Amino acid sequence: MKFTLAEIARHLKGKIIGNPNLSILGVSEIQNSHPNTITFFSNPIYKKYLSTTKATAIIVSNENLLDGKNGIVVSNPQLAMGETLKLFYPEKRKPHSGVHSTAILSDDVKIGKKITIEPRVIINEGSFIGDGSKIGSNSVVGENVVIGENCKIFPNVSIYDDSVIGNDVVIHSGTIIGCDGFGYVKYENVHKKIPQKGNVIIGDCVEIGSNCTIDRATIGSTVIGEMTKVDNLVHIAHNVKIGKGCILTAGFGIAGSTEVGDYCTFGGQVGVGPHLTIGNNTMVAAKSGVTKSLKGGKIYAGYPAREIEEHNKRLALINQISTLRKKVDQIIKKD
Amino acid sequence: MKFTLAEIARHLKGKIIGNPNLSILGVSEIQNSHPNTITFFSNPIYKKYLSTTKATAIIVSNENLLDGKNGIVVSNPQLAMGETLKLFYPEKRKPHSGVHSTAILSDDVKIGKKITIEPRVIINEGSFIGDGSKIGSNSVVGENVVIGENCKIFPNVSIYDDSVIGNDVVIHSGTIIGCDGFGYVKYENVHKKIPQKGNVIIGDCVEIGSNCTIDRATIGSTVIGEMTKVDNLVHIAHNVKIGKGCILTAGFGIAGSTEVGDYCTFGGQVGVGPHLTIGNNTMVAAKSGVTKSLKGGKIYAGYPAREIEEHNKRLALINQISTLRKKVDQIIKKD
Amino acid sequence: MKFTLAEIARHLKGKIIGNPNLSILGVSEIQNSHPNTITFFSNPIYKKYLSTTKATAIIVSNENLLDGKNGIVVSNPQLAMGETLKLFYPEKRKPHSGVHSTAILSDDVKIGKKITIEPRVIINEGSFIGDGSKIGSNSVVGENVVIGENCKIFPNVSIYDDSVIGNDVVIHSGTIIGCDGFGYVKYENVHKKIPQKGNVIIGDCVEIGSNCTIDRATIGSTVIGEMTKVDNLVHIAHNVKIGKGCILTAGFGIAGSTEVGDYCTFGGQVGVGPHLTIGNNTMVAAKSGVTKSLKGGKIYAGYPAREIEEHNKRLALINQISTLRKKVDQIIKKD
Repeated sequence: MKFTLAEIARHLKGKIIGNPNLSILGVSEIQNSHPNTITFFSNPIYKKYLSTTKATAIIVSNENLLDGKNGIVVSNPQLAMGETLKLFYPEKRKPHSGVHSTAILSDDVKIGKKITIEPRVIINEGSFIGDGSKIGSNSVVGENVVIGENCKIFPNVSIYDDSVIGNDVVIHSGTIIGCDGFGYVKYENVHKKIPQKGNVIIGDCVEIGSNCTIDRATIGSTVIGEMTKVDNLVHIAHNVKIGKGCILTAGFGIAGSTEVGDYCTFGGQVGVGPHLTIGNNTMVAAKSGVTKSLKGGKIYAGYPAREIEEHNKRLALINQISTLRKKVDQIIKKD
Repeated sequence: MKFTLAEIARHLKGKIIGNPNLSILGVSEIQNSHPNTITFFSNPIYKKYLSTTKATAIIVSNENLLDGKNGIVVSNPQLAMGETLKLFYPEKRKPHSGVHSTAILSDDVKIGKKITIEPRVIINEGSFIGDGSKIGSNSVVGENVVIGENCKIFPNVSIYDDSVIGNDVVIHSGTIIGCDGFGYVKYENVHKKIPQKGNVIIGDCVEIGSNCTIDRATIGSTVIGEMTKVDNLVHIAHNVKIGKGCILTAGFGIAGSTEVGDYCTFGGQVGVGPHLTIGNNTMVAAKSGVTKSLKGGKIYAGYPAREIEEHNKRLALINQISTLRKKVDQIIKKD
Repeated sequence: MKFTLAEIARHLKGKIIGNPNLSILGVSEIQNSHPNTITFFSNPIYKKYLSTTKATAIIVSNENLLDGKNGIVVSNPQLAMGETLKLFYPEKRKPHSGVHSTAILSDDVKIGKKITIEPRVIINEGSFIGDGSKIGSNSVVGENVVIGENCKIFPNVSIYDDSVIGNDVVIHSGTIIGCDGFGYVKYENVHKKIPQKGNVIIGDCVEIGSNCTIDRATIGSTVIGEMTKVDNLVHIAHNVKIGKGCILTAGFGIAGSTEVGDYCTFGGQVGVGPHLTIGNNTMVAAKSGVTKSLKGGKIYAGYPAREIEEHNKRLALINQISTLRKKVDQIIKKD
């Protein structure tokens, strides 16, 4: 692929600074850049690389940042970078290839048009795969599963019975959807299993990373709202409801029956307790532990999680102890 | 399925309150209830729903909670709910279907009676599958593995050589049993691998969730005691011994050679260090880090984990710092 | 297997203490030892077992530790134990068995000599497997993947397109290499996916445990340096660079674009933030959270991670609060 700076600028609806005829052969990171590529500047911690980058052009939000270099000015350089990547690496849209001869589909499985069922996929009784969806090699789809349109299920995914997956959903390798909730009741020193008879419902445009585990509900449904994005190694327990447009970062875990609102963001390795309610637009810093319901619209941190200002204040208080001790010792001495 | 309130009460050996002839068509959660269903009340945080529930009847521990509504009184509503679920959703006991034509079993594999080996299962030399067990699609069983009777191994499970699995064990998808322990010794700046020559032994009636990793021992065995229940994404290192009847919640990790007693409960995302001894009936709060051996019989929290009263006291101490500072500043001013 | 103490000592280049003709039939742990075996003493917390062990001989670093028992003195007993295990359990080097008839290799896949491709492996277009490598059952290798020589890929591994894996690499079951980085940019309340167009590069002699997730780079490469060892359930985000000879313990997670130097050690459940630089020879205690770049050469602990002396001092400060309060209350009383 090869584009001129002008062609890229037109694609991004950005303003060209410098030579519009520059030839760009690829894309590179600003901190690890190569000649004949275009890069972008967005995260201020990489500011020092603006002057040293080997890239031929830089996508920026403000002309002054270029300081005489060639570039393109746009309102959102990160978004523009995504668009530039799509230009240089157009999605390899392989033609749908139908059902591979080694796939095993139960007789009553219904499949839509233009689908791809890769080698060794297994799809059990009563399941349905919508138009344009692709199921990756060695994935196993249980009974009575519904997978919507234009989904992309990567290899080695396991989907248990009764799961309902919307349209345009992406699920990466090793993820397990609909496994049993961790529900036991102790009786005479034995943990008796509570049957897990609900299911999992995943909304449209959800993306789920690798090696996640999403438990089915005991009764009813575990729900992940539309447009929510889930990183790797995330655990979602039975009967949890996640709203729409949330971000669940790697290592996040949430316990049973908690309900999370819309547009919430949870940092890496955060844990959330059971039976809580988390309001819309909640942000929780990495590694925090949420033990109480949160109203939402705020940033929380720590364990137990508090509003971040309060959390930071508590951390700062510890710094005051040695000063306090010195003062007290001086008072005692003076007496 | 459809039962009268009287039929359900008889099944639960509970006392009917209200109309015994009420027709119940299913089960719902109290906070998300539907007409014509039965629900249950156990967790006090859902008390407000007792008066607003749309369910036709409620399983409770005390008649007064019903406040004129229809219901069933039992000693343990959660246990009763499990039994009610079994009534409405009897386990689909499919007839055993033998060995699927696409499974690959080495010549000397021994299998019991009434077993189900699903499509594409691979079982290697010298392994044994007991009566009534089921191995899910695409699971891979190594060499010299013993799987007992009435086990249920879900799809896409990997069991390494020499693992010994008891009777009535359930293992969910994506879990890895018997992978190498993380054992290296640094020598001249190289981490030399210590051969991992032991195995994993899993006791009767253990259930292991999805995407767990249970390492084989370096020498001897990594052991999970009977009736222990393991949630998702749990890591158990080499040579760990877990007692019987323990609860290991999602994201729990335990380092090499630690020995855990019976009936211990570990909250989510807890970490336990290596070479420790954890006494019987220990409870550790979520996200704690255990760095020393624990006598058991108590609740521990924090990192490093302490008895919970001590942990809470330390957290409260931090609250006192600003008051202390004000007092000290006042004393100084007065002087 | 059966060796005399003299034969083992010769193998270890150690000094025999006691009877060289003792017959040793196996290896056991000192805390869980058996007659007719050899054990080793290295970790001081097991010192009490030196006198009570049932093992016939002990590998030690100092003759005095034997106190009259039979044994072998070496400079590094842990290393010697590894060598002893290799003696008693020589690696079952099965002859390479070529490509199993049920494996599916695209036409243009290139494979080296003396390889083993186990049943049901799938290898897609343009990929290459080097001499002496083994790919375990049901593993899926994407397009344009390079796997070097003498690698051992266990069953049920998923390797995405474009991954480059060096020589002598071991990857355990359930691990995912090259899945998409978690890159979105929020635009008009929608998390738009940033195309993930880079790859993963894994250096020589790396070992990766079970159920890990290693994301491909957005642009360029996510890199794991040679001789680095990765435990189970580890998450490595897009564009991370890990140096050589590092140790990443179970549950470790590292966010996007962070660069880690050589010979770093991260304890279990540690989290490291994005866009940081971690110097060579850094050690981070278990469960810590690294939020800032670290110079290296030191031990860090806590969240936010600090040099460990400072971290311990802060923890100790909290202990002083109640004493301080008593002093202040006494001063006020005296006034």
